[in-house]
Amino acid sequence: MKLVVKNIDIAARGVLLNRLDARGMGVMNGDRVQVINPKNGLSATAFVEITSTIAQQGTLGIYRITNERLQMEDGDDIEIREAGRPESLDYIKKKMDGGKLTKEETLTIIKDVVHDDISAAELTAYITASYINPLDMDEVEHLTRAMVETGEQIKFASRPIVDKHSIGGVPGNKITFLVVPIITASGLKIPKTSSRAITGAGGTADLMEVLAFVEFTAGEVQQMTDKVGGCIVWGGATNIAPADDRIIIQEYPFKIDARGQMLASVMAKKFAVGANLVVIDIPVGQNTKVANMQEGRKLAREFIELGERLGMKVECALTYGDTPVGHSIGPKLEVIEALRVLEGSQEPNSFIQKSISIAGIALEMAGKAPRGGGMAMAQDLLSSGKALEKMKRIIEIQGGDPNVKSSDILPGEHQFVVRAPASGYVIEMNNRSLITLARTAGAPQDRGAGILLHAKKGKLVKAGEPLFTLYADRNWRLQKAIEEGRRLMPVLVEGMLLDRVPSSFSEI
Amino acid sequence: MKLVVKNIDIAARGVLLNRLDARGMGVMNGDRVQVINPKNGLSATAFVEITSTIAQQGTLGIYRITNERLQMEDGDDIEIREAGRPESLDYIKKKMDGGKLTKEETLTIIKDVVHDDISAAELTAYITASYINPLDMDEVEHLTRAMVETGEQIKFASRPIVDKHSIGGVPGNKITFLVVPIITASGLKIPKTSSRAITGAGGTADLMEVLAFVEFTAGEVQQMTDKVGGCIVWGGATNIAPADDRIIIQEYPFKIDARGQMLASVMAKKFAVGANLVVIDIPVGQNTKVANMQEGRKLAREFIELGERLGMKVECALTYGDTPVGHSIGPKLEVIEALRVLEGSQEPNSFIQKSISIAGIALEMAGKAPRGGGMAMAQDLLSSGKALEKMKRIIEIQGGDPNVKSSDILPGEHQFVVRAPASGYVIEMNNRSLITLARTAGAPQDRGAGILLHAKKGKLVKAGEPLFTLYADRNWRLQKAIEEGRRLMPVLVEGMLLDRVPSSFSEI
Repeated sequence: MKLVVKNIDIAARGVLLNRLDARGMGVMNGDRVQVINPKNGLSATAFVEITSTIAQQGTLGIYRITNERLQMEDGDDIEIREAGRPESLDYIKKKMDGGKLTKEETLTIIKDVVHDDISAAELTAYITASYINPLDMDEVEHLTRAMVETGEQIKFASRPIVDKHSIGGVPGNKITFLVVPIITASGLKIPKTSSRAITGAGGTADLMEVLAFVEFTAGEVQQMTDKVGGCIVWGGATNIAPADDRIIIQEYPFKIDARGQMLASVMAKKFAVGANLVVIDIPVGQNTKVANMQEGRKLAREFIELGERLGMKVECALTYGDTPVGHSIGPKLEVIEALRVLEGSQEPNSFIQKSISIAGIALEMAGKAPRGGGMAMAQDLLSSGKALEKMKRIIEIQGGDPNVKSSDILPGEHQFVVRAPASGYVIEMNNRSLITLARTAGAPQDRGAGILLHAKKGKLVKAGEPLFTLYADRNWRLQKAIEEGRRLMPVLVEGMLLDRVPSSFSEI
Repeated sequence: MKLVVKNIDIAARGVLLNRLDARGMGVMNGDRVQVINPKNGLSATAFVEITSTIAQQGTLGIYRITNERLQMEDGDDIEIREAGRPESLDYIKKKMDGGKLTKEETLTIIKDVVHDDISAAELTAYITASYINPLDMDEVEHLTRAMVETGEQIKFASRPIVDKHSIGGVPGNKITFLVVPIITASGLKIPKTSSRAITGAGGTADLMEVLAFVEFTAGEVQQMTDKVGGCIVWGGATNIAPADDRIIIQEYPFKIDARGQMLASVMAKKFAVGANLVVIDIPVGQNTKVANMQEGRKLAREFIELGERLGMKVECALTYGDTPVGHSIGPKLEVIEALRVLEGSQEPNSFIQKSISIAGIALEMAGKAPRGGGMAMAQDLLSSGKALEKMKRIIEIQGGDPNVKSSDILPGEHQFVVRAPASGYVIEMNNRSLITLARTAGAPQDRGAGILLHAKKGKLVKAGEPLFTLYADRNWRLQKAIEEGRRLMPVLVEGMLLDRVPSSFSEI
């Protein structure tokens, strides 16, 4: 059937069909159709929604995300057809039934994911099936390659190309802001793509956006890296391994991160930017994604094996993940802390030690430092100001102010200090509660929101001493965070009352 | 935040927020929010879509399905808040991890399904998890009760109340059109709710719509049953066990029918209409849902056990499902065949024998006929014209013409006869291919579309004799079906060539 296009300004996928046209075609609400731009042959699969008024008879409404594929304008002719059932659905069913997917089957599914040929619900079925019936290493390799092939790839003229990745779950993990300039200062190349926070209080891309632009194409990432040695950009803008974002969005409601998908997600992004030396930071701790050393070592072996299959050298660092890295949580607060260290501050120790350890491994892998000498070299590149100099060049090439100082960045103006209710040692810091609290205060969207920790685990505090300060850009969010903080108690002091039972209970 | 309502004429769920309001609230595309009608306190969960123009700053667009809950008009004040994470998601995650859901957890999920508090993708995760980690009988009972409790229920003043259900998969299974009038003619009550076809060529509700209206409330079903003894309505309009439809829509892409959900779905609808005597027809055959007798008996035992837990008496009939019931497939063709039998035709035997067997079991269960005497009584009620008389009363009370005759109903005007390409016995009829073919011709939306079989399995035909006739309401659909029929070959004759290998192959 031929219709005339009407663009619908809604950030969604799908097409909008008039009730009468739908009846004429025998199409029902929710049916899958194929729409074709007859001018250039571009086509898209879309799910139908029905209206009596917003699209008149003879016109087809197209939502914004679907039109990104079709590139049509109001009044253009468009063709609409019944869409066949995607083969992907049979392969997803096979995975539900415990089958093992071939390379071709996996690629078909991932292509359909990237092209929006299957719905969010159908993708969720694939994710759920792969979570319950875990992918074996062959399937993980297929998935990694499929993620790479369905997106853009960078091919550098020379090697080595370094990359690093931290498995999430630990708040304040801003080490990229030291690792990338240190690696760059050593003369190595590191085209770092990062994520925005989904469940966290600030992804590396959210942090970098405080200093510079982060949305670049894959080509621009390559040029910037060739010019200054490195960059820190948002992976979501590059069209590198675009399937990954779609998968993560569907995993989010269930807080799952299926092992196979996680391995493929990390390694696909590294492979696609052309990295051949990769350091993986695996934080281990009760409130992180990896609960103990045994699990951490198993995951490390899987990363290394997958790297071998892909022709990449991978080393993993199991790191302490029970408390935040450094003292700051939230975009601006973390950037201030990172810049201070680049500017010469020797605090906080936990942040510096972790960063130079990870950078040191990469320097050793690349042969820049002898085995056992990487950390000292990283420390030297940091202390000498060479890393700061490189960071300025990276900020500059990404369109930021290279002369920015830590003191130029101001965190949220609305602040509240939480004090120790009793004297004693800080016995617990709950990562998840700290993240929830920072998000309640507005992080990561509100860049100034977050938490500054004054005391970390093991420190002796006196009653009335500050434990942490809450920051927010908006007062109502601060008030909400104060209230939430009372309930969550993310930092516990030994002598603190955890609850008070009212007297009526003791009388029973 | 307070906004002003703008109704959006799109048959979808969700709300449409202006980009600037979204930024102000810190809400992102796809976020879950709660919207509240301050006038009456009605509230709904909705997922946000973002626009720059269709909803102006300060207004909130509401899609049609979401507004069915809120009942708001343009210009009304509306409040929008962040929605908490539904607990259901934790329970679905528990099922993914192989856990067993409690009664309360199941009820929470099903409530959220019915109230649209979880998304289609989240529901799909639940269905996928329950398919891979099957529900045990406790969980099936919980699910059944939850489906009943979240919808309307009918409570008749007296018992017994009879009901029947056929597990799908067999084309032409129009037995309800004989069973309901026979049961009614015996003096028993049978408030029959039926489905529309999702994957089939015509659900009982689609067929009944040829004769009368099928959309009634639960209260109307009760009144009609009290007055004339029975009815044949579309269950989807009654708000009886409304969760079931939502689940079936999500199962459709994968052609799954998870055992636990299927048991719960069937029995919830029977329980909710107040039935205490239930006959389940389980067609067994290669191309149906139940492949062999062993599986059929297992399923029968599960239905009986679930019935016992719910206080209902259940008997199951394993029936022959390898070929269609009767000769007709598609709404009008099947109604014509059913009316002819009610009018006195003694053909087709397969249809009559199956119908009186099922009706006979119900008559025996209710004590109307002695054990072993039910079938004869059913045959008598049919032959005597009493069943036809009751069918007329049912058609009349549902707003149709009680004097309708089989000859008044005209099937699709576009027809094509498929003839035997060779002489021999009909050796195979493929149910799935027949259904696909009837759907290609336009069934069930085009009521006149379908297939009339002239020869069934085992019959000896001569080359050139008609095998079946294709019917369609629209010529382009008939042409498509003719083409599809050549590919599918749903009826095979022994002597027929299945394929012809071109000579180039034999020369290799």
